[in-house]
Amino acid sequence: MKTFIGFAEALDLTLSHVASGGTEKRSLLDAGGRTLAEDLNAKVDSPSVSTSRKDGYAVFPEDLKTATSARPIRLALVGSLSAGDMRPIRISRGEAVRVTTGALIPEGADAVISEEFCRLEGEEIACLNTAEPGRNILPRGTDVRAGETIAASGSELTPPLLGLIAAAGHGVVSVRKVPRAAVIATGDEVMLPGSPLPPGKLYASNMVEIGAWLSLHGIPFRTAVIPDRPQAIREAIQRGLSETDVFITSGGAWGSEKDLILKVVTDMGWTGIYHRVRMGPGKPVGFGLLDGRPFFVLPGGPPSNEMAFLQLCLPALMKMMGFLPSVFPTAAARLSDHVHGERGWTEFVHARLKKSPAGILAVPSRLKSRLKSMAEKNALIVIPEDRDEIPAGEMIDVQVLKPMVDPCRATS
Amino acid sequence: MKTFIGFAEALDLTLSHVASGGTEKRSLLDAGGRTLAEDLNAKVDSPSVSTSRKDGYAVFPEDLKTATSARPIRLALVGSLSAGDMRPIRISRGEAVRVTTGALIPEGADAVISEEFCRLEGEEIACLNTAEPGRNILPRGTDVRAGETIAASGSELTPPLLGLIAAAGHGVVSVRKVPRAAVIATGDEVMLPGSPLPPGKLYASNMVEIGAWLSLHGIPFRTAVIPDRPQAIREAIQRGLSETDVFITSGGAWGSEKDLILKVVTDMGWTGIYHRVRMGPGKPVGFGLLDGRPFFVLPGGPPSNEMAFLQLCLPALMKMMGFLPSVFPTAAARLSDHVHGERGWTEFVHARLKKSPAGILAVPSRLKSRLKSMAEKNALIVIPEDRDEIPAGEMIDVQVLKPMVDPCRATS
Repeated sequence: MKTFIGFAEALDLTLSHVASGGTEKRSLLDAGGRTLAEDLNAKVDSPSVSTSRKDGYAVFPEDLKTATSARPIRLALVGSLSAGDMRPIRISRGEAVRVTTGALIPEGADAVISEEFCRLEGEEIACLNTAEPGRNILPRGTDVRAGETIAASGSELTPPLLGLIAAAGHGVVSVRKVPRAAVIATGDEVMLPGSPLPPGKLYASNMVEIGAWLSLHGIPFRTAVIPDRPQAIREAIQRGLSETDVFITSGGAWGSEKDLILKVVTDMGWTGIYHRVRMGPGKPVGFGLLDGRPFFVLPGGPPSNEMAFLQLCLPALMKMMGFLPSVFPTAAARLSDHVHGERGWTEFVHARLKKSPAGILAVPSRLKSRLKSMAEKNALIVIPEDRDEIPAGEMIDVQVLKPMVDPCRATS
Repeated sequence: MKTFIGFAEALDLTLSHVASGGTEKRSLLDAGGRTLAEDLNAKVDSPSVSTSRKDGYAVFPEDLKTATSARPIRLALVGSLSAGDMRPIRISRGEAVRVTTGALIPEGADAVISEEFCRLEGEEIACLNTAEPGRNILPRGTDVRAGETIAASGSELTPPLLGLIAAAGHGVVSVRKVPRAAVIATGDEVMLPGSPLPPGKLYASNMVEIGAWLSLHGIPFRTAVIPDRPQAIREAIQRGLSETDVFITSGGAWGSEKDLILKVVTDMGWTGIYHRVRMGPGKPVGFGLLDGRPFFVLPGGPPSNEMAFLQLCLPALMKMMGFLPSVFPTAAARLSDHVHGERGWTEFVHARLKKSPAGILAVPSRLKSRLKSMAEKNALIVIPEDRDEIPAGEMIDVQVLKPMVDPCRATS
């Protein structure tokens, strides 16, 4: 097991030890936000026939070449078609067929004149305008052609991509499975949220935060709050082992006498990958594989817990779901205030983005309360290993904490 | 009922006719992504006692004033405390107590010297460094003070805010209810996704896309595909009326002979607010109230359906959930290519964001396939009413389609 490694190595090691999950079939109405696990070809043309884009009249364009509102041209109305009506109608010169939006274009017709340019006069229509060939016609296959590739394996199933897939004839698609997580908070001092709080105890706020991040990413999870007893920790891990794809523990990462997680998983035969990373906050984080399952040993201090989760665990979860493993987009911002770290360490500094006349400012948090600093940040300043400070005024790339903030709508 | 109104008026009218929903209690682990419906004060101090930030030894700072690695100072080890252990221990000058991270600071002690600066020597520790008063101590109430306001009604319950609320002693919070939607696709030509497709028919791709948008926002919904028969449409609306907070229909918005939705809801006694908006795509959209419930009549053409949903219906849903009604963040981008609309109309143009040396470019879509253009866009160019074109090279604010894209990670 490596120890005290740099952050980049820790992230690489993490990602190289997790794989995207298995696949499952989902109906389109139940596949949003997943990633596609197959290439999809269109099964049908869409539209399946040439149809009208407007409510109007299907005509021969040549018939209306001289039509104006002053000198309308009259056509005989010989029928009517609405969307989905497939009666074979054929028109000849001098004739028109009433069509609604989406209706089949009758054989012979090559334009639709919109109803706003027509007057119905008994069995005839008076056309007040021309209609060039193809006017208001949506040709068969415009949107999708049978056989063409419409989505590649690995694509995120966004709402409009799901619409395209539906139009192409699929009702069910193969998607990447979502991992099931176990979130285990350890410590004699840790209490379930909302229970009475004896002096010296604290609530499992890390567990609540991690659970919310998992929920936002559609990852199902079970939770447990376990005292500092090896047997209890071991049982919490083994409980539901077969229904757990990834373990996330909170607290007990330091390896001191009461920090038992590493001892327990070592006893259980895990493969330790790393322990302690040159990142701040988050240094005591550990990672390994237990029965082949990714196992994250997160520190108990709230800022460390959150940062180790966001920077190492969440990218792994994204990869398991078939996404690119980068969780947060970056944005260019001007640093409002000097920040300093420590050379050889990667430091993550809570910040808020603010609009200013000179562009987006990243303002480092100066709050004493760790939990308020965490809740109020909407971006992270990253001080890389090769720098020990960044001066005020420098343009930097900040991590924007989607889904917590709309990056480009920073508060003013 | 107003007709042919401008887009801004349509949005204003929509939002002024919807209200944020009722409230419900949710446990913190089940409240992510909701909005808070109450102001919250902290019930407890966090930490509830002053605790150690490190594994180390609680000491009198004065005892170590001259400690160095060359001339360590020895203290008598008189006890040990781990996190959550509340035994009342008191130390005197010349003494130290072993403490783990999170442990209570013994009475008398006013600093913790980290274990890396100490050597355990039997019943004594040799301290190789000084420790100024307060060193490595997290004072009671640093993160949260009992009684202070920690979150205001209307706040989005982000993961770290939920962590803060948990630490402050709450287990259950009052949140805004999420509306329940009915998505009804109408048209004799509309088929359920995945079923066989007779010529002239098409799949309910609009319903699939809207369902996915609703899912991504945590909004539960039922769906139905209904033929063009007034009685069938009426029954689809009335089915589960009491469990529906908002209606979204697709198709039948034009008001022509086969476009029946407006006739049906008028017969059912709705209050029509507007029909037809000077927006493109999306013009035929209608909106009203049926039994006091927001009722959106969306056009059937896919681009119109999507844009009316995104620009008018989704903001209303956001407001009902207690969020600000703006759905999409905006970002500054340089237009790569001339776009034109029509004066008096608000035009929305599909676009993709690309990185360029000159900053982010917005590239308008030129795809013939409407569905592919919809699926491939990740931003919308808005041409306002008072302009009929925007020339290439102009800096504009584009709507960034969260959650479809990371705005600042445009493809290069």
